[in-house]
Amino acid sequence: MTVLTAPHASNAASTSPSYQARLACRAGNAEQTAGLAPGYVQGNLAILPEKLASAFHRFCQLNPKPCPIIGMSEVGNPKIPSLGLDLDIRTDLPRYRVWRDGEMTDEPTDIMAHWRDDLVAFVIGCSFSFEEALMADELPIRHIEQGVRVPMYRTSIACVPSAPFEGPMVVSMRPLKPKDAIRAVQITSRFPSVHGAPVHLGLPQSIGITDIAKPDYGDPVLIKDDEVPVFWACGVTPQAVIAAARVPFAITHSPGLMLVTDLKNKQLAVL
Amino acid sequence: MTVLTAPHASNAASTSPSYQARLACRAGNAEQTAGLAPGYVQGNLAILPEKLASAFHRFCQLNPKPCPIIGMSEVGNPKIPSLGLDLDIRTDLPRYRVWRDGEMTDEPTDIMAHWRDDLVAFVIGCSFSFEEALMADELPIRHIEQGVRVPMYRTSIACVPSAPFEGPMVVSMRPLKPKDAIRAVQITSRFPSVHGAPVHLGLPQSIGITDIAKPDYGDPVLIKDDEVPVFWACGVTPQAVIAAARVPFAITHSPGLMLVTDLKNKQLAVL
Repeated sequence: MTVLTAPHASNAASTSPSYQARLACRAGNAEQTAGLAPGYVQGNLAILPEKLASAFHRFCQLNPKPCPIIGMSEVGNPKIPSLGLDLDIRTDLPRYRVWRDGEMTDEPTDIMAHWRDDLVAFVIGCSFSFEEALMADELPIRHIEQGVRVPMYRTSIACVPSAPFEGPMVVSMRPLKPKDAIRAVQITSRFPSVHGAPVHLGLPQSIGITDIAKPDYGDPVLIKDDEVPVFWACGVTPQAVIAAARVPFAITHSPGLMLVTDLKNKQLAVL
Repeated sequence: MTVLTAPHASNAASTSPSYQARLACRAGNAEQTAGLAPGYVQGNLAILPEKLASAFHRFCQLNPKPCPIIGMSEVGNPKIPSLGLDLDIRTDLPRYRVWRDGEMTDEPTDIMAHWRDDLVAFVIGCSFSFEEALMADELPIRHIEQGVRVPMYRTSIACVPSAPFEGPMVVSMRPLKPKDAIRAVQITSRFPSVHGAPVHLGLPQSIGITDIAKPDYGDPVLIKDDEVPVFWACGVTPQAVIAAARVPFAITHSPGLMLVTDLKNKQLAVL
């Protein structure tokens, strides 16, 4: 574990809940990041060598709903100042996954030993931000009510490829009453950088989901008779695509253990 | 039929398609107003004696989705300058319905003979405006494709009452693919003064619609396997409520024969 770096600036930001959350993650004191620093944006992480980074960046550009980039590093530079005070992408997530040739080879609590001068880090928006907006509007989030992980499904919707990155869009599902589904479209449309509006609703079979009770990732949740399943593009998509591409080297976050940033969810609203 | 009144102002507005459309309606030369003056707002009409007008106005205020008021007259004044150059509510619709004690007693082409000094005219937004926005986005409108009237249904959604006005919300239905339904929510959310976002989708039985193939007004349309029915609050609601209240006297437009205004649909967008 890296020795903690004291913030250089002695301003209010150093006492912000997001900064404190990152310090806790650095120190290995976070079991999960859900619920940490409410109101602050959390992000998925994907790190790739420069040689592959431009193809991945283009993949994200071509598929902004599953892969909305909220920040990225310069080549070889582990700091992303736009996302947080004193943020170090090598230490500030609780746990990482290191991939070689498509296989996970390590799951360390920091990546100091894996960092290289040619790496580029991408931070991708996550559904925590829009879920906060839905809950602020008193819409129920079933998997949170049930205390399980959100159900996620591989779909028949193909992402636009950017070789070697290609594959199906993965979606997350939240069941809602129709009037709440309409409200959820309105609310999440305001947040394009964290997946935005749903990509589908009501007819899972139309997007290749044959059994809604058997998600490909996460846990199944109850769908009541008066509810429709609502599907959002999911940040698992880029991870699945990176794994499927079997690239020589990549690093991602460990599921549920995200990067806590100093951005506020409210800042991401376009309206 | 009233003698045509030449426009007093010799400005560009007098040659606008909307003004020309009203002249045609005045002259009895319009079979329907759908398709007249594309881009211009058309409105439903409800005229009530002052004694009932405030209760009706309150009903509209309480139920803005089915009853969005886009203009109203002063008591006894048949002009509504905010809605159109030289507009005369007594002559500028192709056909009217006159109601006494809840029964339609006349269906004249003007209401000069029925006008009274105590009447108040309400013009209520109509779905033509948001349909234009949907089509501009290349979303298909099934009843237009099929050349029939939009299907409309009485629902189990109760309007907020304002005695003697009360009753169920009437909705119109357009079938859409789920991704188009999501887009339609976004588009129509921009137009709250013409019914705004849908009130329901996907589960007709949840709002008391037992047989989607049998609309209460209009015509049935095809719903394909990969489509969901999407329901919008409908301007037939205030007409149904006025008829049900069996008020001593009221005037409405005849179905499909609306008021063409000088407002442009684009002006109604809130964003």
